[in-house]
Amino acid sequence: MPETKVKKTEDFNEWYNEIVELADLCDKRYPIKGMNVWRPYGWKLMTFIDQLIREEMIKTNHQELYFPLLIPESSFKKEEEHIEGFGSEVYWVTHAGNNELEEKWLLRPTSETAMYPIFSLWIRSHADLPLKTFQIVNTFRYETKQTRAFIRVREIHFFESHTCHIDFEDAEKQIKEDKEIACRLFLKLCLPFIFNKRPEWDKFAGAFYTISIDVLMPSQRTLQLGSIHQYKDNFSKPYEISYETEEGEHKYCHQTTYGMSERILGAIVGIHGDNKGLVLPPEVAPIQVVIIPIIFKGQEKVVFDVCDDICKNLQKENIRIIVDKRDITPGNKYYDWELKGVPLRVEIGPQDIKKKEIVIVRRDNFEKKSVPQKSFMKSIKEELDKISLNLYNKAKKIIDENIHRVKTIEEAKNYKGIVEIPWCKNKDCALEIENILDGNTLGEPIENAESKYACPICNNPAKTWMRYAKSY
Amino acid sequence: MPETKVKKTEDFNEWYNEIVELADLCDKRYPIKGMNVWRPYGWKLMTFIDQLIREEMIKTNHQELYFPLLIPESSFKKEEEHIEGFGSEVYWVTHAGNNELEEKWLLRPTSETAMYPIFSLWIRSHADLPLKTFQIVNTFRYETKQTRAFIRVREIHFFESHTCHIDFEDAEKQIKEDKEIACRLFLKLCLPFIFNKRPEWDKFAGAFYTISIDVLMPSQRTLQLGSIHQYKDNFSKPYEISYETEEGEHKYCHQTTYGMSERILGAIVGIHGDNKGLVLPPEVAPIQVVIIPIIFKGQEKVVFDVCDDICKNLQKENIRIIVDKRDITPGNKYYDWELKGVPLRVEIGPQDIKKKEIVIVRRDNFEKKSVPQKSFMKSIKEELDKISLNLYNKAKKIIDENIHRVKTIEEAKNYKGIVEIPWCKNKDCALEIENILDGNTLGEPIENAESKYACPICNNPAKTWMRYAKSY
Repeated sequence: MPETKVKKTEDFNEWYNEIVELADLCDKRYPIKGMNVWRPYGWKLMTFIDQLIREEMIKTNHQELYFPLLIPESSFKKEEEHIEGFGSEVYWVTHAGNNELEEKWLLRPTSETAMYPIFSLWIRSHADLPLKTFQIVNTFRYETKQTRAFIRVREIHFFESHTCHIDFEDAEKQIKEDKEIACRLFLKLCLPFIFNKRPEWDKFAGAFYTISIDVLMPSQRTLQLGSIHQYKDNFSKPYEISYETEEGEHKYCHQTTYGMSERILGAIVGIHGDNKGLVLPPEVAPIQVVIIPIIFKGQEKVVFDVCDDICKNLQKENIRIIVDKRDITPGNKYYDWELKGVPLRVEIGPQDIKKKEIVIVRRDNFEKKSVPQKSFMKSIKEELDKISLNLYNKAKKIIDENIHRVKTIEEAKNYKGIVEIPWCKNKDCALEIENILDGNTLGEPIENAESKYACPICNNPAKTWMRYAKSY
Repeated sequence: MPETKVKKTEDFNEWYNEIVELADLCDKRYPIKGMNVWRPYGWKLMTFIDQLIREEMIKTNHQELYFPLLIPESSFKKEEEHIEGFGSEVYWVTHAGNNELEEKWLLRPTSETAMYPIFSLWIRSHADLPLKTFQIVNTFRYETKQTRAFIRVREIHFFESHTCHIDFEDAEKQIKEDKEIACRLFLKLCLPFIFNKRPEWDKFAGAFYTISIDVLMPSQRTLQLGSIHQYKDNFSKPYEISYETEEGEHKYCHQTTYGMSERILGAIVGIHGDNKGLVLPPEVAPIQVVIIPIIFKGQEKVVFDVCDDICKNLQKENIRIIVDKRDITPGNKYYDWELKGVPLRVEIGPQDIKKKEIVIVRRDNFEKKSVPQKSFMKSIKEELDKISLNLYNKAKKIIDENIHRVKTIEEAKNYKGIVEIPWCKNKDCALEIENILDGNTLGEPIENAESKYACPICNNPAKTWMRYAKSY
């Protein structure tokens, strides 16, 4: 069976670059660097990911809305840290037709500064709170580093949730809910991750604190898939988002946001894929099962009828399934659907029909088995569940094996992946370690973070652990 | 029951402006004119409209994809008529961070010039054809006329389908399919429309011909909801979209496009709404049925149980239904849901429960009836269908009564709405009539277009009819 030119284990980054185009996810030949074309298969896959996010949001009483793409410079400039953080990364619209605009507008890099002037009009009283909203949109960042499909792009397919609360505690409850959402969502996507409380100097511009959601890619680099931010009243003050309490007092809201992007797709491609192509988690696979009729001259109708019948029955159960009746060899069909990452292949030929069996082949481990035709529904559902579980467990093992808690820098040098080093909470010490290890600070664990050891730089007692890794 | 400040029949435009905000569809206070905030209710409604379009596209084998928002100036400038038509209406991105871009980029006003350079890479052989694609995106036009929510905006929620074919005939078949899609779609939306073949000087920039989809608004102005374009090889030549035939010849593709926008929502609001608010077609109503428990002290549980039971049963049948248990008077609830245009209201109180009945009230005509509780499923489905039919028929009657075929300009002056006047196919004559009537040429009917009369301007024999109307 043909494989990718570059092997995943030999050169992960090259393999990744090859597979995203080979599997018809995107086309990188668009004439603006870092702005790729989403091909139908890639777009469908992203849509299924969006749909899982949407379901989580609806379940937790968030409302979907849509704010304009363009933001006036004056709205953007109200929160100082925010403009400092994003100012050098935004695209500016300066002209309309042949006219220069009176005020220039920027393309949203994220929507705080578009939303918050309007939130301040929507929120009047405690009865308007909490306000829980989200949107799924295109955002723009002027990336100067090397771009990579889904991982570092300039037009970003982006999810952002924005919430307003009566006080810090209520906002903290939201953060808790956000973390639970991440756990449920990434389990469905078979993506084990870690939360990291970003250090002060690496938090979101304007946030009180930032928790990142990071996965470990097969290159042993971490990839940030999302982040959860506690804003406190950092934005509500400059944007005047306040409310009247039951007692008639005026108070500023406390706010949170939650962001995730198409990087989720990048992680699915990178973590689950192999040299034959994508391996998609059943929850988001555009096609979950493909039936390949094994036909011999004269027996087409008998075989097609059985295939169609099974297909129709599974469609009724909302399983995304097709019968591939193309006039090419079964081998060529296997190749196509393996490349596309379809989780389960069913083969049905005259022999199987005689034996009242169907053959099931898993994409994740190529396990092949015959099962009784009469219990196909149960078998297929079970196998899909097994695939999800296996994809998750395989990835979980890898991330678990590649987080190392060490006491010294020398020890840290023995490991790829993620290392946790005792930290005194002094910025200079962390930056020094970044330098020595040629890695990045990921942040502190949000649980089990106490450290009894000494900071290996200043030797003062460590207050916590700091995680370091090379990252995308 | 409270009503809008402005009556629909007294000042349609003002009523419209009021209702779109009052019913929580959008917020017009965003600091860029013509770029409105989609509030959750409006966004949900738009999403259901999108979903109907998507279903039609999938049924006809179109594939959804996504092309970048930004288009390099050089890609944009390849087709001359197109740049002439759109050049003065586009927004330009000229800077990124603090840097001036080497080449300026524009925000898509429509995506021909983003897609076609890539289509030319995708299409190699006749086996790649037809290519049938679509996307649902935000587009941008620098409108200088007065803006109006959903009707004339600067960031437009836009559907665009792009197809490539082996020859003109195959592209014509696509146009036929597009027209059938329009018929099915707008029937579901209860929006009767007319097709108009736009005159040469008013077709899409670069098209061979353009067929518009126009509705008549209660102000007696027409509103263009969409258009279908035959491009012939007008774009495929400059963008080099060619293919190899079975015989090894190289030929240019023939192309079509199909565009529709959030104006569909504007038409739904304007055509079906009344002084109490929106009246939504059941197919796209975010909430199709609201159950109002009529409660008296001590009987809450009995009533709520019946309401919940009916609600759950209807949800299983994919009917979008809620029980409004808020602690406010039923009257206030009626007011809210009438404003939001919920097609059907169900009232259930202890008396009804005793009689084993439920009360159903239609939003479109306020008809109220009691039906047996045991057949609620059938009754509710039937009433929803009746509402759709009634909305369509009411609107159909109005447009039919307001299209007048006349022989002279004097006669035309007697009518509001749409007039059809014999036309010699001479541009100057049509423009002269536009001037006299202070209206716009809509285009020729695509059926029954023969005229035996004389052009009222030049007196030469008319070759067809030209439609005129005031339009948005």
